[in-house]
Amino acid sequence: MTVRERSPEGDQTTRAAELIDELTLSEKVGQLVGTYIGSMDRDISIEEAKELVVDSHVGTVAAFGIGVSLYHDAERVTELANELQQTALEETRHGIPLLLPVDAVHGHAYVNQATVFPHGLGMAATRRDEFAETGGEITAAEMRATGANLNYGPTCDVARDPRWGRTFETYGESPLLCGSFASAAIRGLESPTDGPRVAATAKHFPAYGEPEAGEDAAVVDRSASTIHQLFVPPFEKAIDAGASVVMPCYNSIDGEPAHGSRRYLTELLREQLGFDGAVLSDWGGIDMLHEDHRVTASQRDSGRQAIQAGLDQISIGREEYADHLVSLVEDGELAEERVDEAALRILELKEELGLFEDPFVDVETVTDEVGTPEHRSVARAVARESQTLLQNEDDLLPLSRELDSILVTGPNADSLRHQYGGWSVQHPEEDSGVTVRDGIESAVGDETTVRYEQGATMTETVDLEAVEEAATESDVAVVTVGENWYFHEFGPQDVAGETETYPTRSQLSLSDAQQELLETVHATGTPVVLAVIAGRPLTIEWAADNVPAILYSYYPGSEGGRAIADVLFGDHNPSGRLPISVPRSEGDLPTRFNHFAHPTPIGDDEHPDTYDPLFAFGDGESYTEFDCRDLEVSASTIGPAESVDATITVENVGDRAGAHALDFFLIDEVSSRVRPVREHVAFTKVDLEPGESTTATITIPNEAMAVTDSCGRTAVESGAFELICEGESTTFSIR
Amino acid sequence: MTVRERSPEGDQTTRAAELIDELTLSEKVGQLVGTYIGSMDRDISIEEAKELVVDSHVGTVAAFGIGVSLYHDAERVTELANELQQTALEETRHGIPLLLPVDAVHGHAYVNQATVFPHGLGMAATRRDEFAETGGEITAAEMRATGANLNYGPTCDVARDPRWGRTFETYGESPLLCGSFASAAIRGLESPTDGPRVAATAKHFPAYGEPEAGEDAAVVDRSASTIHQLFVPPFEKAIDAGASVVMPCYNSIDGEPAHGSRRYLTELLREQLGFDGAVLSDWGGIDMLHEDHRVTASQRDSGRQAIQAGLDQISIGREEYADHLVSLVEDGELAEERVDEAALRILELKEELGLFEDPFVDVETVTDEVGTPEHRSVARAVARESQTLLQNEDDLLPLSRELDSILVTGPNADSLRHQYGGWSVQHPEEDSGVTVRDGIESAVGDETTVRYEQGATMTETVDLEAVEEAATESDVAVVTVGENWYFHEFGPQDVAGETETYPTRSQLSLSDAQQELLETVHATGTPVVLAVIAGRPLTIEWAADNVPAILYSYYPGSEGGRAIADVLFGDHNPSGRLPISVPRSEGDLPTRFNHFAHPTPIGDDEHPDTYDPLFAFGDGESYTEFDCRDLEVSASTIGPAESVDATITVENVGDRAGAHALDFFLIDEVSSRVRPVREHVAFTKVDLEPGESTTATITIPNEAMAVTDSCGRTAVESGAFELICEGESTTFSIR
Repeated sequence: MTVRERSPEGDQTTRAAELIDELTLSEKVGQLVGTYIGSMDRDISIEEAKELVVDSHVGTVAAFGIGVSLYHDAERVTELANELQQTALEETRHGIPLLLPVDAVHGHAYVNQATVFPHGLGMAATRRDEFAETGGEITAAEMRATGANLNYGPTCDVARDPRWGRTFETYGESPLLCGSFASAAIRGLESPTDGPRVAATAKHFPAYGEPEAGEDAAVVDRSASTIHQLFVPPFEKAIDAGASVVMPCYNSIDGEPAHGSRRYLTELLREQLGFDGAVLSDWGGIDMLHEDHRVTASQRDSGRQAIQAGLDQISIGREEYADHLVSLVEDGELAEERVDEAALRILELKEELGLFEDPFVDVETVTDEVGTPEHRSVARAVARESQTLLQNEDDLLPLSRELDSILVTGPNADSLRHQYGGWSVQHPEEDSGVTVRDGIESAVGDETTVRYEQGATMTETVDLEAVEEAATESDVAVVTVGENWYFHEFGPQDVAGETETYPTRSQLSLSDAQQELLETVHATGTPVVLAVIAGRPLTIEWAADNVPAILYSYYPGSEGGRAIADVLFGDHNPSGRLPISVPRSEGDLPTRFNHFAHPTPIGDDEHPDTYDPLFAFGDGESYTEFDCRDLEVSASTIGPAESVDATITVENVGDRAGAHALDFFLIDEVSSRVRPVREHVAFTKVDLEPGESTTATITIPNEAMAVTDSCGRTAVESGAFELICEGESTTFSIR
Repeated sequence: MTVRERSPEGDQTTRAAELIDELTLSEKVGQLVGTYIGSMDRDISIEEAKELVVDSHVGTVAAFGIGVSLYHDAERVTELANELQQTALEETRHGIPLLLPVDAVHGHAYVNQATVFPHGLGMAATRRDEFAETGGEITAAEMRATGANLNYGPTCDVARDPRWGRTFETYGESPLLCGSFASAAIRGLESPTDGPRVAATAKHFPAYGEPEAGEDAAVVDRSASTIHQLFVPPFEKAIDAGASVVMPCYNSIDGEPAHGSRRYLTELLREQLGFDGAVLSDWGGIDMLHEDHRVTASQRDSGRQAIQAGLDQISIGREEYADHLVSLVEDGELAEERVDEAALRILELKEELGLFEDPFVDVETVTDEVGTPEHRSVARAVARESQTLLQNEDDLLPLSRELDSILVTGPNADSLRHQYGGWSVQHPEEDSGVTVRDGIESAVGDETTVRYEQGATMTETVDLEAVEEAATESDVAVVTVGENWYFHEFGPQDVAGETETYPTRSQLSLSDAQQELLETVHATGTPVVLAVIAGRPLTIEWAADNVPAILYSYYPGSEGGRAIADVLFGDHNPSGRLPISVPRSEGDLPTRFNHFAHPTPIGDDEHPDTYDPLFAFGDGESYTEFDCRDLEVSASTIGPAESVDATITVENVGDRAGAHALDFFLIDEVSSRVRPVREHVAFTKVDLEPGESTTATITIPNEAMAVTDSCGRTAVESGAFELICEGESTTFSIR
């Protein structure tokens, strides 16, 4: 829980501050722009990137990590990192080292053999934010081993439209989970207990997670109080946890694209939230001001607007933005003080990361530090605890190891790529992780036959006759369906398939082919375990009505197959809890536990329930049974500046050891402004042997009781509150 | 286009102002509350209502009109109106006449035999706002003939979530159409060219039309600039047109329920928009503050908050609110000045309506004035022009009168109730209108056999074998599907069917039964004309792919069957244009022509179109063909305070006479804030004989070019604009 310590002023900042005075305008501006190596709208070779460093003084190079980067081999990327730093140190006037950023949002997953954790949804399903912290430490260690020093993560966005193609990266629909897990990840990345640190990025500020129609980067057209009370809180926690960097969202909010908005980047972020780190653009975020949002008339104007708004670096600005910024200052359109301020922040960040001391890393040892067995065993533990058992009729699970035969089928049963999900290597090496098929095959003994049939791709059935025959001959069928590797709007096409084919934003149900596979297996009468590997909460209503066992696996990462097998065979008692509601259909969206209270003009009985999900936020079953009782608060009346402690007794009344997560919800009986019907205010998890009981204590923080207004001001009001946990309820008042 | 004239101050307001000084607190408070007669949460008899008038000084009685009212016979309701006024005049100290409000949103449709116009969507499809004005005049005449004097309409809400159960009442998704048609209706109601006037209500202020998940009265959680630029403009036009009354929406917006919001009811409505009429609550809107929104702790507090916020009347407040308001003033919690102000507004309204002179009406003549042939012929003309031909492959339509046989089938083929839609009598008398079946039967000659099979109810198929047989034997099948009579959230159950059965908010497709009926008929090979009588844009993708002719009929009202027949047989050339987009599926929502511009981070080619409706806003075919050319503007550069005239030449190049609607869209190339990709800025309609051409001229008003900020301030910015009409395009600039 340590927050990154900053050295005293006047010491650590000296070098950066001194340097600023020595730099020409053009050299300062170079710190405000970055480049990449690879193929995006333009191909940039290593040599060209070096030229940008030397000629345009560019201070940041995204050398590897993105989907189009040239190398994924750990030694090769490490060499490249050293090579680039060498150019910066030896071929520029002041030898300023480079920021080398990477999208390591669930491990350093663009490097082969790296440890790949479950994506955000799975991480949040564990209800153990210490996993996010440990994950952050491991990610930092693997990043730093390869020379990367800035992580474009974690995602702090609250997922409020599950159609959105970036739902998987988030920690779900609860602002509490998003804030808790993001801040834990930031602590791990920025201030590991041992090992090297990297800079973490709280992204995408202030709100990305409810784009119109779930369409990536579309307007987040929500009221100011919703922005302040439901989107911004995770960022506050991220800043408190020591995030060095904040990245704006692509979206416009209330008429203003965040990348060009002084209101969001300066008034809200710096003045109101007190952030003093660096604000780095998302890729292409500045060009979008004139190209898409059309709030400026030219690229030059976009650069001016963004820097004036409070942005410190145009992440892939290259020489054209360097030229614009120089001319803007020279023509009196941009204050040089603003350039100085931004450059100083970038230089300070480099200094804090120790890059001025030594930016080089050891190519010889890198493979010993990436994807170590210790790291992988943590990833397996996280993946295991993320598994969320949504249904288990007749105790079909856990499966016996004595079964004669198991059918393993489905497009995600034997695909490392799909179980990684996006922001990972596109073509994982075969031995870099364990698929569901591998996991099941390793788990059973020689006497059990494991049949494998692919059964379907994302969109096409594959030899259903063979599936039918295999299912008929098997004791149980594990059907693993879901979504593939994608990022943003389910692309790119060369990896994820044609645009408008499954998965796509308007469809949350299974593809027709996958549904057909599932129904084919089901029709044989062989009991079906459905495992869903997907980035979004899929509307699996038919399955819920027909399939006895359903395991939600999210994107479980490199160790996912082993983790799923651990659960299927009972080596691990599942304890994951949904971090997001599973809606019944697209027509029911939004389906959120924390919707706002509202009237029903012609009567409640004329009105279907507002919250009627297929599976609710917090759902998740176990192989044992827990009894929860005696929910109590430490005081029945508290002062308006006080917090309250809650206790609840949990007993494992079943016959297996297991963990049990507890979600606490608060209901404000009356408040001056309309609030969500319930808010998720605390969570914890307990481990219990059979017959064991414990009393969990948790603090309901004062801030959870506060009402937020349209300006983001909060106030705690007197009145009654109801606290709910596991169907138990108690009350307290604020005087 | 005349705005209601107010008599000079000091004359017309004298009586009301004088009266105020004579009233006791309790008598004044009586003007601030209303009651109803009938069954809502409580049964109130005529006698009880009279007691409330006498004992609690209640000044407004909703005596008929609502779904649960006691009488629908014109003479009986007229007698009741007189009886109530008599009580008020003779049994109260000052003899203050009553406001007698009714929901006459598409004609005085709660009275048997009244003229029932198409609901809002159909009205807007005509693209002739003069129809709304004439409709308003006719509605005022029929209302006043029965003693009603205040219309709870028109609806000024912009429909931005088609799942919403009140979509049908609106004029669609274009703020321009909503404002133009609502203001025209208000002119007709408030200042008819001849005949009596009634008070009109601009409702529901400021925003109701995009409730979360399409759920009735749920939060409208949109940004302030969206509220100001897309929801409020129709209200501005309504106020300019002379609306006497504004009604708040049930919803909360940015944390504040409109009924208790000083920000919306006083700062925005009165101070910013300059409204000086009366603000009347929606029914139950004040109780909802404590019961549902939970922003107050008691009914008494809700009364206080609403009146302080700027509300003038608690529409069904009855004696409990009268008592609360008296005690609030006596206890010093509510300023008597605020009560005086509100009471004065109500009294002034009564005075302006001439009620102090004579509130009584003639029971003898009422049946001569309600549903006259002249009125009905206007309703037929409106219904005819609302018919929107979405598809007409191989010129299946118009049908020949020489056909041997026609099958008429579907749940809406022979149901006056369903073609009226909600806010109408629940059980229309058989001779009060013309169904599709009646219309077709009347249209054909003796040699044509018209077979009728119901085929389906809303949710169940009915003898599909008979349908199949009849279809096989017929030359063409007219399948009339859609939705039934409902209001608010598809209720009430005793009329509209069980909650959660079709129609319901999460489903925009046809019900399974109706789809099966359609597919059954189609499978016979008999050509199908699909007519859709529905309150929402239904996702009829299968029909679009399989059925040659599709006619969208909305809720066409009492003359709907005749109007549909007029189109089917070519007596009228269809010219309706969709006032709302028809989405492909619920998962595509929202689907709006005026969505905001936004980026596509990994490229346009990775991104399905944002606006990809099944049928677009403005779609609508004709039996003839129009050629549009030479779109020009009167000046290529204008000043920032100027408007510009646009002209376009339209030629009827086909062989039938017909009308052609023109929708004009404006694109702002660059603006300081993110705007919709296009805005609907003007519309008109031309009538042309075959071979005839004309040049239509229309003004693109200065206000259409303005950018709106989060406070509702508008500014016209210099720069380039593109104007589009019928695929033609031109540009102009503001200097």
